[in-house]
Amino acid sequence: MTSRAETLLRRARERGVMIATAESCTGGLISGAITEVAGSSDIFDRGFVTYSNAAKQAMLGVSAETLAAHGAVSTAVAREMAAGALWRSEADLAVSVTGVAGPGGSEAKPEGRVCFGLAQTGLAVQTQTMEFGALGRGAVRQATVDYALDLLIRALA
Amino acid sequence: MTSRAETLLRRARERGVMIATAESCTGGLISGAITEVAGSSDIFDRGFVTYSNAAKQAMLGVSAETLAAHGAVSTAVAREMAAGALWRSEADLAVSVTGVAGPGGSEAKPEGRVCFGLAQTGLAVQTQTMEFGALGRGAVRQATVDYALDLLIRALA
Repeated sequence: MTSRAETLLRRARERGVMIATAESCTGGLISGAITEVAGSSDIFDRGFVTYSNAAKQAMLGVSAETLAAHGAVSTAVAREMAAGALWRSEADLAVSVTGVAGPGGSEAKPEGRVCFGLAQTGLAVQTQTMEFGALGRGAVRQATVDYALDLLIRALA
Repeated sequence: MTSRAETLLRRARERGVMIATAESCTGGLISGAITEVAGSSDIFDRGFVTYSNAAKQAMLGVSAETLAAHGAVSTAVAREMAAGALWRSEADLAVSVTGVAGPGGSEAKPEGRVCFGLAQTGLAVQTQTMEFGALGRGAVRQATVDYALDLLIRALA
């Protein structure tokens, strides 16, 4: 069976596209998955693991105003993270995630809610929110990794 | 059984220490492991996944001269990666890894060779080279993650 990472490597290679990632709740597992296949250095440039809000601001240029107005888990922050990853890398395609891995959450931001951003050179940043539900921390993070890889693969279709 | 990540979280919390990571061959799996436990935002600030040489230079300040003279897989680069991660974060403790995950390698730099750096505020950067051997890509990466977590745990002993 071809893994998501293998499919992504093949498609990105065919198109000559370099990829960057900007991760909060997954903490580096998306870049870890992309680089699990040999040859991934052909298509993967860098990853920003911006766990703290200070890191989101310093590494990706997310604005303090956006964080204060919408909170870290928001499409507004996902948008700025993806845009920042594209801008501050040599990549042509960037994915971002920020979510509530849990355990726990709040009524306003329940466990399993993850906001995604997708940035491509020359195109407007797209964002999306998924509700994976209270699957538990490990399962929410894995679902987020899989979904992020699918977004990248579809962007290269 | 207490996982490495749980032990690290407890010790770093006790000491009020924040951690950063700088990863090449593991591609984010070290930060992924640190953040697998709930509450890790108390002790994990950010991670730099510097897969390309350009990323090592731009994100961590690794010098082009060091890369040219020693190659990416070297204690000299591991040292600059760890120092850069400490400098460009809000962390007090940083670990770096750069290695040959394979499959394959060269006579000069065999599969399974991984260079580690450990930087702590106020102390000289320590480096170390491990030869994990030709275990295969996944196993070399996992051995590297485990060893990096052990280095952090020992630094907090």
